[in-house]
Amino acid sequence: MAAAKGPRRPRAETPKGFRDWFGAEVTERNAMLARIAAVYDRWGFDALETSAVETVEALGKFLPDIDRPNAGVFAWQEEAVPGGGSGDWLALRYDMTAPLARVAAQYRNDLPTPYRRYAMGPVWRNEKPGPGRFRQFTQCDADTVGSASPASDAEIVAMLAEALEAAGIARGDYVVRVNDRRVLNGVLARMVPDSLADNDIGQSVVKAMRSVSEQHFSNEDILRTIDKFDKVGEQGVIELLTDGRKDASGAFIEGLGLFEWQATEVVAFLTSKGSTNTETLSNLKQLVGDDNEGVAALGAIASLLATMGLGEDRVIIDPSVVRGLGYYTGPVFEAELTFEILDDKGHKRQFGSVAGGGRYDDLVERFTGQKVPATGVSIGVDRLLSALRAKGRIGQDQATGPVVVTVMDRDRMGDYLAMANDLRAAGIRAEVYLGNPKNFGAQMKYADRRNSPLAIIQGSDEAARGVVQVKDLVLGAALAAGASLEEWKDRPAQAEVPRADLVARVRAMLEQAP
Amino acid sequence: MAAAKGPRRPRAETPKGFRDWFGAEVTERNAMLARIAAVYDRWGFDALETSAVETVEALGKFLPDIDRPNAGVFAWQEEAVPGGGSGDWLALRYDMTAPLARVAAQYRNDLPTPYRRYAMGPVWRNEKPGPGRFRQFTQCDADTVGSASPASDAEIVAMLAEALEAAGIARGDYVVRVNDRRVLNGVLARMVPDSLADNDIGQSVVKAMRSVSEQHFSNEDILRTIDKFDKVGEQGVIELLTDGRKDASGAFIEGLGLFEWQATEVVAFLTSKGSTNTETLSNLKQLVGDDNEGVAALGAIASLLATMGLGEDRVIIDPSVVRGLGYYTGPVFEAELTFEILDDKGHKRQFGSVAGGGRYDDLVERFTGQKVPATGVSIGVDRLLSALRAKGRIGQDQATGPVVVTVMDRDRMGDYLAMANDLRAAGIRAEVYLGNPKNFGAQMKYADRRNSPLAIIQGSDEAARGVVQVKDLVLGAALAAGASLEEWKDRPAQAEVPRADLVARVRAMLEQAP
Repeated sequence: MAAAKGPRRPRAETPKGFRDWFGAEVTERNAMLARIAAVYDRWGFDALETSAVETVEALGKFLPDIDRPNAGVFAWQEEAVPGGGSGDWLALRYDMTAPLARVAAQYRNDLPTPYRRYAMGPVWRNEKPGPGRFRQFTQCDADTVGSASPASDAEIVAMLAEALEAAGIARGDYVVRVNDRRVLNGVLARMVPDSLADNDIGQSVVKAMRSVSEQHFSNEDILRTIDKFDKVGEQGVIELLTDGRKDASGAFIEGLGLFEWQATEVVAFLTSKGSTNTETLSNLKQLVGDDNEGVAALGAIASLLATMGLGEDRVIIDPSVVRGLGYYTGPVFEAELTFEILDDKGHKRQFGSVAGGGRYDDLVERFTGQKVPATGVSIGVDRLLSALRAKGRIGQDQATGPVVVTVMDRDRMGDYLAMANDLRAAGIRAEVYLGNPKNFGAQMKYADRRNSPLAIIQGSDEAARGVVQVKDLVLGAALAAGASLEEWKDRPAQAEVPRADLVARVRAMLEQAP
Repeated sequence: MAAAKGPRRPRAETPKGFRDWFGAEVTERNAMLARIAAVYDRWGFDALETSAVETVEALGKFLPDIDRPNAGVFAWQEEAVPGGGSGDWLALRYDMTAPLARVAAQYRNDLPTPYRRYAMGPVWRNEKPGPGRFRQFTQCDADTVGSASPASDAEIVAMLAEALEAAGIARGDYVVRVNDRRVLNGVLARMVPDSLADNDIGQSVVKAMRSVSEQHFSNEDILRTIDKFDKVGEQGVIELLTDGRKDASGAFIEGLGLFEWQATEVVAFLTSKGSTNTETLSNLKQLVGDDNEGVAALGAIASLLATMGLGEDRVIIDPSVVRGLGYYTGPVFEAELTFEILDDKGHKRQFGSVAGGGRYDDLVERFTGQKVPATGVSIGVDRLLSALRAKGRIGQDQATGPVVVTVMDRDRMGDYLAMANDLRAAGIRAEVYLGNPKNFGAQMKYADRRNSPLAIIQGSDEAARGVVQVKDLVLGAALAAGASLEEWKDRPAQAEVPRADLVARVRAMLEQAP
């Protein structure tokens, strides 16, 4: 039997679905965000940072995955106020759009109209964690509040393209797809003509349609189904819209109960993309008529983008884009990376979506009762970073570690600290070994672990002579990896220099590095 | 009576104790953090970003304000796992140190030893909100895990001084005060000599002492009382340590029940700072003897700092520094700004503390059972920013707004977007007015609100002639404020230029700006 234990120790673990970011993961992300922020700033967008915590009522319920606990957010209730009522329910923001709508309402008298703002930071979703699926991730948004003009949508799309290029995605490696929800609304409206829906017979037809599956589907249900088009294809969407579908795992997903002819009409819309924007617009007009507001907006956006010099190689109208979020009211956008990567199983696949957005004209009205049109885009920062890594745009050459000043003589710690200080004063990244110095091998191992280019060594003998040794660790590693001394003949593995020349010599050796 | 209302609208409010940051508040903070990060990096510290959410058990209870609800954190319980037990309690981190201890334990086989890391980001405290007192604020930490050497404490202190200077605090405007908790422990130990405390009579003396106030005070109670030294002074601390004290509002705060002679001994320690570090060290030795580990560490740190060139104008030993947090085990540091500012009531006062830290050798052991020494510092970013603002180091000249392209003719929106595009391509911040264009006055008001230097105007007449008007808004504002035209004679209020020369002319006019 084990001996009696002390109190149980806490587990040293991130909570399920959360993770940590180390070193270059942090600095590369920040550098990319700074490049994107510079683009947003140049377009006249101002920075905004809202607090991570909002009241649940301000956030509203717009997450697509409404079946999750707490409607997908991390929420808790404030302590009751003494003498007051029960405490507010608070929650971590699940995106940047809901807080912006709250800000636009709260500061409506102080902000310029229209208000252009960008925001970067973490958001949280209370979803079931899974491999590569995290409950905290970073978004990078830009939005314009207070303009109903298609010019504001076109601006967001054009700026998104520029931001992706600033982040490191080459022209030709991405495309922004644009659609308008009102076109789909038109398609759905034509399924049940007004003349029918407005009288009792029409209503009973609608009821009958719905009773097929006993489900009261809404446009949102249909949107969410369409959003799976990429995954399940044409036939899959028809099955999901009508009688249901068995997925790859054999599980049966119930259908929405539309008639086959209705589902076919929806799919005709989804696949109405022509080879040019002009052709697509003409297809859409045939489907929903000439007077559809969505088609008009898409036409205006396409024409403004052309004037701004964005060709159809960068932005195209694509009716299959719907976006999952419930709050979009008009144009919707999605930026997709068009190159292939190898997935976890070694299969080639398209990288897919890295950003999305659209117009949400009703979000601010929730607070104020007054219509405030708004449009914007959100870049999925973690996905974009992993795309840049996959393309070798970042993370290829490991960051160079610091010069490590080793400790040969514990009593002369001050001297070693002063050496590192001198190097840093010259702008050279440097540190003193602060572990137990008695084993020199451990110090060299540490320097290796730190990816150090050079180690500084000064034992009591060197100290007495006023010199230091500068050891080339890159050369050492190359030799250990099988490089011939021939290639390195101009580069000594170790050099003894006067203490006074330490900085100059280190700088020279760092510049010599390949 | 009011008409029947619709469903209640959500309040457009930040939750109590939270706030938003706009424009320069965000960019100035990020710029300052980038300067500090560059210092940390040069000293060999690697970036780390942990998730905002931790398990409550990993965080531990180390907040000074332990009487608050949920022990001062925002916490909630995960949904129960189906078939499993109840869900974990999760919480927002209240500092960066507890998460670092968790990381150091979780990744102990992968991280270098010692591990130097920096971290920047928000932390959350579930405290009672008050004026200027927020429940989310930004910290900027640097820590070394795995070194017990006083050199690692000295390094943190020296780096802190450099970071403050990089942030914009001039040498002479700050001082870092250093103390060691073990000196105070020595003082307290001498109140109840071991020879007493180790036997029954001693124990009953201790009990008798404590029964005076019916309170079971601990060293932590004493620490927290001492931490108020700055606020309540010598006599105040003596009252709080003994029989209690009436504060300014007339409320009575209970005392800890020490004897008067014990309180006097504590205050003798607090006020033992000499005019030099040498004198202070000698005073401390008189109080607690020659063999106190804290005094030895302070001696070592002072000597290492001197070797690194940090004089007593920048770092001094000060026994009155104790720091509120419960987890410190040895040296503690506090950076104070020494200049005076005007407070809300117009009174001059010292700006006070902007950073603090110390050694916490037991935090990682909580997880692993193995001793892992650690030391570090945390900069209060919001306080530091407000100090820089008070000193006029940031926020003095308002950021220049974008060039605003006005809209005279709604049908030529594409032309206006193209103008803004051309300006941006030349690196000039520019935007098109996207509000309702029918009222030109509103457009000029908007440009003013945006702090725009220039407005671009092109009506149908100008368009036909292929020209644009560039209007100098800075000049307009100056004239409106009473400047004479004489001062501005070389500067036309408005210029007509060919469309092709727009960019060149705008650039020239921006360069001309004062």
